[in-house]
Amino acid sequence: MYELTIELNANNKIPLYEQIYNFIKNEIKNGNIPCKTKLPSTRALAKHLAVSRSTVDLAYAQLVSEGYIESEPYRGYFVAEITLLYDIGNGEKETARERRMADESNLIDFSPWGIDLSSFPFNAWRKISRGLLSVDNKDLFAPCHYKGEWQLRQEISRYLYEARGVRCLSEDIILGAGNEYLLAMINQLFPDKPNVAMENPTYMQAYHVFRQNGNTIIPVNVDKSGMIVKELMESEAKIAYVMPSHQFPTGVVMPIKRRLQLIEWAMKDTERYIIEDDYDSEFRYLGKPIPALQSVDSGGKVIYLGTFSKSIAPSIRMSYMILPPSLMKRFEERTSFYSQTVSKMDQMIVSEFMKDGYFERHLNKMRAVYRNKHDMIISLLKDSKGKITVSGENSGLHIIVTVNNQMSEEKLIARAKEEGVLIHGISQYYIGRNNATKSTVLIGFASLSGEEIETGIAKIRSAWKV
Amino acid sequence: MYELTIELNANNKIPLYEQIYNFIKNEIKNGNIPCKTKLPSTRALAKHLAVSRSTVDLAYAQLVSEGYIESEPYRGYFVAEITLLYDIGNGEKETARERRMADESNLIDFSPWGIDLSSFPFNAWRKISRGLLSVDNKDLFAPCHYKGEWQLRQEISRYLYEARGVRCLSEDIILGAGNEYLLAMINQLFPDKPNVAMENPTYMQAYHVFRQNGNTIIPVNVDKSGMIVKELMESEAKIAYVMPSHQFPTGVVMPIKRRLQLIEWAMKDTERYIIEDDYDSEFRYLGKPIPALQSVDSGGKVIYLGTFSKSIAPSIRMSYMILPPSLMKRFEERTSFYSQTVSKMDQMIVSEFMKDGYFERHLNKMRAVYRNKHDMIISLLKDSKGKITVSGENSGLHIIVTVNNQMSEEKLIARAKEEGVLIHGISQYYIGRNNATKSTVLIGFASLSGEEIETGIAKIRSAWKV
Repeated sequence: MYELTIELNANNKIPLYEQIYNFIKNEIKNGNIPCKTKLPSTRALAKHLAVSRSTVDLAYAQLVSEGYIESEPYRGYFVAEITLLYDIGNGEKETARERRMADESNLIDFSPWGIDLSSFPFNAWRKISRGLLSVDNKDLFAPCHYKGEWQLRQEISRYLYEARGVRCLSEDIILGAGNEYLLAMINQLFPDKPNVAMENPTYMQAYHVFRQNGNTIIPVNVDKSGMIVKELMESEAKIAYVMPSHQFPTGVVMPIKRRLQLIEWAMKDTERYIIEDDYDSEFRYLGKPIPALQSVDSGGKVIYLGTFSKSIAPSIRMSYMILPPSLMKRFEERTSFYSQTVSKMDQMIVSEFMKDGYFERHLNKMRAVYRNKHDMIISLLKDSKGKITVSGENSGLHIIVTVNNQMSEEKLIARAKEEGVLIHGISQYYIGRNNATKSTVLIGFASLSGEEIETGIAKIRSAWKV
Repeated sequence: MYELTIELNANNKIPLYEQIYNFIKNEIKNGNIPCKTKLPSTRALAKHLAVSRSTVDLAYAQLVSEGYIESEPYRGYFVAEITLLYDIGNGEKETARERRMADESNLIDFSPWGIDLSSFPFNAWRKISRGLLSVDNKDLFAPCHYKGEWQLRQEISRYLYEARGVRCLSEDIILGAGNEYLLAMINQLFPDKPNVAMENPTYMQAYHVFRQNGNTIIPVNVDKSGMIVKELMESEAKIAYVMPSHQFPTGVVMPIKRRLQLIEWAMKDTERYIIEDDYDSEFRYLGKPIPALQSVDSGGKVIYLGTFSKSIAPSIRMSYMILPPSLMKRFEERTSFYSQTVSKMDQMIVSEFMKDGYFERHLNKMRAVYRNKHDMIISLLKDSKGKITVSGENSGLHIIVTVNNQMSEEKLIARAKEEGVLIHGISQYYIGRNNATKSTVLIGFASLSGEEIETGIAKIRSAWKV
């Protein structure tokens, strides 16, 4: 039995029960009463402290309800295993995914997902952020319009018009915390869970969102012009999810003829729609940017999805969608009760960033940065005597490399890893059985330095003997 | 026919077609070529400028694809109605909701939703934000852990343990951009769309999320101890959504006995769970805070939902949930592909805000601010000779007022509005037919100044003759 001698002060404005409660709580928290220790009974402690039993009852009840002590029937009160309540050490239990990531952190990773954060516009960001916070502006922290702040939506509409030929008013735009969130919102506009056609291979995050939300996915093959519309027409799909300006992962750019066929498909049924995911079209290295599919859609059939994840940073969680009038009406009726999910502060920063011309300058800079890395890789992969075929180049943050050296995709990845290089295969982006007949991998370059690219490519060429 | 005389420079590194394209684009954008104007045919313009026809074709094609001009079969090319492409003036089309909000912006609004932003901790926020941005820290903009930044989750776990008796490790916590988002995520953990029991009246945003996601809602009546568990037991519900520490809108606090009954209900079936929405329990004015339901749940049955919307600001879009082990496993398997939705910068700011003790000080300050407003309202509503009954006081940011003056709820609201005061009735929070027999309204006070409260209450007492 643990003895508790508590100095109580009856004249203190803190009630006696609370003084007892505070004392015991602190003793437990400081480790002075070890866990599993049996406490005195309420009767014993009341007698010991010369207070009424109900005072001790109250203190114990509060400790029990807050989990510091536990009452065991017929046995009394015991200090809970409080150490479990805090994180021990300075890390949490690693998941298998996190362990794998840690294992691979020393490798040169040609991931298609990264961006070059060493060129992040810190100075502009700092300046704008300071400016916004320099006065006590309550409005910065007040609730935001459910579609997002008007100023930012207006900047986006101007930018999209100029850069992507997209025609929209700010009121057609809805911001959201990432593409997956917006895809889930789009899903809510179609309560009948229509079948969704997706290019195969495709962007698997989008695939998971549709699957998770109860849609049936119809994989449609991709040829050198993108989704094969003939296959789409023969399917039962109502919605087609496409990346016409730079298909992920193949890098295919859909030419205008195929785009018009796609729109023609959608026009044949009032419930058919196209989701255009324009995720990285800011980065095009050859020729003029190709206007978005949305820009040739006169029938209100295209839902346009864009993001700042590639062009600014993924951590600001800022994507946007443009709904055609029929769906905007549905959105306003059915789902506008969802509050806006993007941080207002970040919205205001990006709005100023665009208004003051920083965004355009940043994009120009990043285009040059990525073009250099892109050209470097293309040149480092030359002279393979036909063993390396590059495709999906000229745009985006990765290229597609097909290797003709008798090694399977799996083997290519394993051999590269032995040399300290992480390469990502194309198979993982296929829905269902992979019908890729060639050994093909993705080579992303955004987050790597020139030196890493040089070393990495040399290592894989040696590993692959090409 | 519009004449286009373009000064072309064949030695310029910009190709001729692009010079033509740029010229026409700028003329249209500057309004020098009015919309609907017919452009010269490609043949005529090529001749006029002494360039090949294919050069003009290319320029026109680009202009068409970007929407500046339109091609009409057999008629030629016309300037598009470009003015439509930009927002005109400095506002967007107002929706009915926005018009109503503007109409009501001059009224004293006793909304239960606001918070007091004039007490926002601008200085601390500014200091932390500057500190974080003072160096070029790439990590601030790199992708975030899918559950949210570990440091912040650790701060939240400590805070919840101390303030709410909630027992969790940082790895049990998942951040999300608002409660509605997290409710939608919770929904994805239950693909069979179980029936959801909700207190009636309830928080309608949550109701809409469940409805929208295909769940059947079972309204359960509320007595003075909260959700009537006997009714719940007789229902087919698998999930119970409750606000035990301060039921919205009734303000009822669920006593421990009812809480245990609720947990007992959940323990009877492996697929039964309780969602505890602990939305404003930070603000309690009388007695010690009541530990969360989660703190007495030993069976892993409670999903705990918390938010910084009331305690810091709604605009940072930061809520969190604690999943019991069985559901965390499901989350990791099924939905962890969703990227984190909360801005990383905001996560880092709040993490420092908590770590450095600002959060605790801010809460203490806000408790005092709100207690003053709360006490003021209670005192201003006194001496009504029994015509005004106040309930749901002692906690949260609104009270419930039942008026016994023969006026219906609708009449109370209408009479108040005539006097320039906006009052919110309780009926709108009922699911299905309103079975409230009394004329009851909500009086929120968080966002109003002392003066507004004084004037507002005087006006409604005069309007209601109580």
